Amino acid sequence: MLDETAKGVFTIACTPFLPDGALDLESVDSMVDFYVEKGATGLTILGIMGEAGKLSSEESHAVVKRVIARTDLPVIVGVSSPGFAAMQALASSSMDAGAAGVMIAPPHTLKTDQQIVGYYHNVAEALGDTPGVLQDFPLVTDVVVPVSVILKIVEDCPTCVMLKHEDWPGLEKISALRAASDAGARRISILCGNGGQFLLEEMLRGADGAMTGFAYPEMMADVVAAMEVGDEVWARDIFDAYLPLVRYEAQPGIGMAIRKHTLANRGAIAHPTVRKPGPKLSEAAIREVAALVERQEQRLAELRT
Amino acid sequence: MLDETAKGVFTIACTPFLPDGALDLESVDSMVDFYVEKGATGLTILGIMGEAGKLSSEESHAVVKRVIARTDLPVIVGVSSPGFAAMQALASSSMDAGAAGVMIAPPHTLKTDQQIVGYYHNVAEALGDTPGVLQDFPLVTDVVVPVSVILKIVEDCPTCVMLKHEDWPGLEKISALRAASDAGARRISILCGNGGQFLLEEMLRGADGAMTGFAYPEMMADVVAAMEVGDEVWARDIFDAYLPLVRYEAQPGIGMAIRKHTLANRGAIAHPTVRKPGPKLSEAAIREVAALVERQEQRLAELRT
Amino acid sequence: MLDETAKGVFTIACTPFLPDGALDLESVDSMVDFYVEKGATGLTILGIMGEAGKLSSEESHAVVKRVIARTDLPVIVGVSSPGFAAMQALASSSMDAGAAGVMIAPPHTLKTDQQIVGYYHNVAEALGDTPGVLQDFPLVTDVVVPVSVILKIVEDCPTCVMLKHEDWPGLEKISALRAASDAGARRISILCGNGGQFLLEEMLRGADGAMTGFAYPEMMADVVAAMEVGDEVWARDIFDAYLPLVRYEAQPGIGMAIRKHTLANRGAIAHPTVRKPGPKLSEAAIREVAALVERQEQRLAELRT
Amino acid sequence: MLDETAKGVFTIACTPFLPDGALDLESVDSMVDFYVEKGATGLTILGIMGEAGKLSSEESHAVVKRVIARTDLPVIVGVSSPGFAAMQALASSSMDAGAAGVMIAPPHTLKTDQQIVGYYHNVAEALGDTPGVLQDFPLVTDVVVPVSVILKIVEDCPTCVMLKHEDWPGLEKISALRAASDAGARRISILCGNGGQFLLEEMLRGADGAMTGFAYPEMMADVVAAMEVGDEVWARDIFDAYLPLVRYEAQPGIGMAIRKHTLANRGAIAHPTVRKPGPKLSEAAIREVAALVERQEQRLAELRT
Repeated sequence: MLDETAKGVFTIACTPFLPDGALDLESVDSMVDFYVEKGATGLTILGIMGEAGKLSSEESHAVVKRVIARTDLPVIVGVSSPGFAAMQALASSSMDAGAAGVMIAPPHTLKTDQQIVGYYHNVAEALGDTPGVLQDFPLVTDVVVPVSVILKIVEDCPTCVMLKHEDWPGLEKISALRAASDAGARRISILCGNGGQFLLEEMLRGADGAMTGFAYPEMMADVVAAMEVGDEVWARDIFDAYLPLVRYEAQPGIGMAIRKHTLANRGAIAHPTVRKPGPKLSEAAIREVAALVERQEQRLAELRT
Repeated sequence: MLDETAKGVFTIACTPFLPDGALDLESVDSMVDFYVEKGATGLTILGIMGEAGKLSSEESHAVVKRVIARTDLPVIVGVSSPGFAAMQALASSSMDAGAAGVMIAPPHTLKTDQQIVGYYHNVAEALGDTPGVLQDFPLVTDVVVPVSVILKIVEDCPTCVMLKHEDWPGLEKISALRAASDAGARRISILCGNGGQFLLEEMLRGADGAMTGFAYPEMMADVVAAMEVGDEVWARDIFDAYLPLVRYEAQPGIGMAIRKHTLANRGAIAHPTVRKPGPKLSEAAIREVAALVERQEQRLAELRT
Repeated sequence: MLDETAKGVFTIACTPFLPDGALDLESVDSMVDFYVEKGATGLTILGIMGEAGKLSSEESHAVVKRVIARTDLPVIVGVSSPGFAAMQALASSSMDAGAAGVMIAPPHTLKTDQQIVGYYHNVAEALGDTPGVLQDFPLVTDVVVPVSVILKIVEDCPTCVMLKHEDWPGLEKISALRAASDAGARRISILCGNGGQFLLEEMLRGADGAMTGFAYPEMMADVVAAMEVGDEVWARDIFDAYLPLVRYEAQPGIGMAIRKHTLANRGAIAHPTVRKPGPKLSEAAIREVAALVERQEQRLAELRT
Repeated sequence: MLDETAKGVFTIACTPFLPDGALDLESVDSMVDFYVEKGATGLTILGIMGEAGKLSSEESHAVVKRVIARTDLPVIVGVSSPGFAAMQALASSSMDAGAAGVMIAPPHTLKTDQQIVGYYHNVAEALGDTPGVLQDFPLVTDVVVPVSVILKIVEDCPTCVMLKHEDWPGLEKISALRAASDAGARRISILCGNGGQFLLEEMLRGADGAMTGFAYPEMMADVVAAMEVGDEVWARDIFDAYLPLVRYEAQPGIGMAIRKHTLANRGAIAHPTVRKPGPKLSEAAIREVAALVERQEQRLAELRT
């Protein structure tokens, strides 16, 4: 079961599809193996970048079972939903299948501090003792969650054990949360998303690791490992080497297609298919990715000699 | 099966709950009977005011089956969903159960004309030959659908047979759509929502009736009937008599609680419960509704003498 | 100078233009006379419905001076602005010209409780001892201001003496603010907008009057007067008689054109011109207004016999 | 006068303030000199990152005059405004003072393709023969401008000579616009913003240069120059060296404070003051910038040996 001590790299898994848009469960296996091999310490599935909203409830459950059957790593399941009945159904079947916890983003209709707190009260009530991750991703949810609101949720809801941090800008938020836990608030795990674009500084501010799906999970694993042993220079060298592609993959909307393209190229999944409605990469974009990958490999080779 | 000739009053049905939040299927029966008795010519279920987003997929299906089993009126099922897999699953099980058609609102992420058209192309592809209703409700969806976009969808998607019109302001939109069909575009049915606040003028502009859930469906039935026989004065008399309560019930958010309170008072459903998260009426609000209903009855009595 | 005891009807004044879009200062005079004659106890100028955003700073100042020169009623000037420098400039020149206070809506970029409070701290600092009105109009500003935030602003900023209340739904907000002042918070004036659509219930909840620009200011004056002497039945009779037109004029966007059309018809201003970019009334809309006005006059005549 | 052939680097200038928030006109001079020395081929002032909204109209005019007096480079003035009267006033005084053109972002209230086109028709009418730049920055304006809309504006409004491109993702948009001009549409200048984060790929797609304010304008100058002579490897080397800081400065909101901090450190302006309401850098952020600058200098030194 997920708890406040979680750290390392929870990879945001994609959901693989066949060229006709059907679920590709065999690629789920190869993808899980790939993430494990590249250094993941946990997996997060059915998140926004996992195209969760495009799955039927049967498909969601099939993905959960397949992933959990393939690995011993802790698995967090995204259960964000317009209503609590569907959230509860997926959370409960996922925990029964062996998930470590669930992740919930706030619905875009929340407007005030009190509405956000009230929403997570309801979540906690609906989910019972299931450990939960608060996903803070204003760029997509359009809900700005102030530090005071996070602290209130942490105080009121003991099952909230982790923040998926992807506010932008969000570095001061990490510092403020860590100052609050230093001053006595319950300390929860903070894993950072945003495609890894600020992982370096996030670790310096007190994050416990990454939760993101950049198609080279070894970047996150290496940066987090280097920071843990205090080798900031190496962490920066690695980070900077991957940054041009990190940046390119972080483009909203089309980023998912870029990521799947790279994962397919690396053999993690069989097809780069994004389910409809979704973007497709142009030839120009495919060339741009290839050029970035080539330079990235050169730079990594230079660094490792 | 629903087609372009649909008219009259399709009542937006609420979803009845027991005080503990569980589905109240017995009240589904009494509610359907009530709507039929008050003059509905069709029913629309699982819409926004039907708290569709709060139901699990099993619950949604149970409501669909129960409603259809209770009436011979055509039933339209709201199948709006973040993804096409879930939309397809509910649409297909609903049509199998005997629904007349489905209704789809655009997701709030659509931003441009082309994105909206593309979305409804995908809807049409996903739903095959199921007749569909385009729900145009910018106040809630935050998607503004121009007349040109509606006409393009009507042109491209033969299964789009009805517009649920609740843009605000939207009177010119009705006029423009009717001018377009007079000039040769396919004429689809236009039924109007917005709690009935503009029903009078909407009929004058060429609407075919109402699709809304005001707790006195006889208002919509009487106004539409009077307009059909050309008795505008009586239509206005009736409309004006109900307007103070129409206006009160049209308050966003809390409107659903007001409506269910009235429906429970009228015996249509057993409990006024709104499922969490949802508003509850204050004592002051309950008094305000009572005062409005009392004056409404007086005014109607005056008119009928 | 405006203070917490303000009550009655502060009419939201329009800004009259000539057919070519130039300021029509002569109509400013006739409009002020009209509002006074119809029962206004104050005027609010350069609000959202005063097309304030479309004026140059020179034009804004010219309107302020002209209005204040024409009447002894207290005049509130809308000074909302993207920045404090422009806000300060207009506030200061308005107060020098004899204004009673200023009104400020929150900019749409504010997202959290703390940001809203911080913004009004900055406003208070920028405006010194100028009395201020907090405009709470989420439908237009997209900023939801919780009761706790209003109370914090009232506590921190002694120059905030009035709430222009047009949240929707907002009746519970009035009750909560009045409960807070009954329990010891500073009591500020609450005048209500939203085109007058809820004036009846707003008065019952504890509002001090109206601040809105419905083209028949005598409606607000009569309703407020009736409520003050405790004649709720008469207040409701009057309110209901005007409600069909109130509702029609409250349509967003086009409402301003409807209002100016009526004001021009009533002789308050010379031309119904809305400055570009702005809507124009169709022939159908003009007929609809005429029909509503005719019935309104009949109903008022009935009531007064 | 600005025309469709403009290219190179138009630096987005900041607006310098004294520690008390007053305009720092002496720093305007040193800043202009700095931009010129670092390779700017033009300047863009009073943009979003120029804190334009926080200036009074007098201050805006003072900045325009001071900048133009200091340099012979073409100067573009941001004149975005809630209304055309204020836009026209600033545009006209700027052109009289010697500006090369003006830039206009769409107001956040525009929702449909037709509304955007209509808005720029009105802009063109208001500005007469003043050359204009269409600023396409959805992350801030919340207005998504499709390629078809840009092409319609280009077709209808001959004074629209440049696109400030900062859609995100926006690479396909550049390709589509260039394909359209290859096929016969009028070819306008495309200069790219977004802090320079995609400058490399933007140039590959057919952009004519950069219009952004990254605190090391020499990055943009060097990348654009290298691309112009076809040295893509050098362009990438330079780009990658600056990218960690580019990314850090591109954080919304706080980015302006980071940029001014760096500009002050480099001697371009005397004080890093951001006018209220605005962010302030924490000590941690200042350390992060210092670390990034140090590595950047090392990397540049490596590349240049």
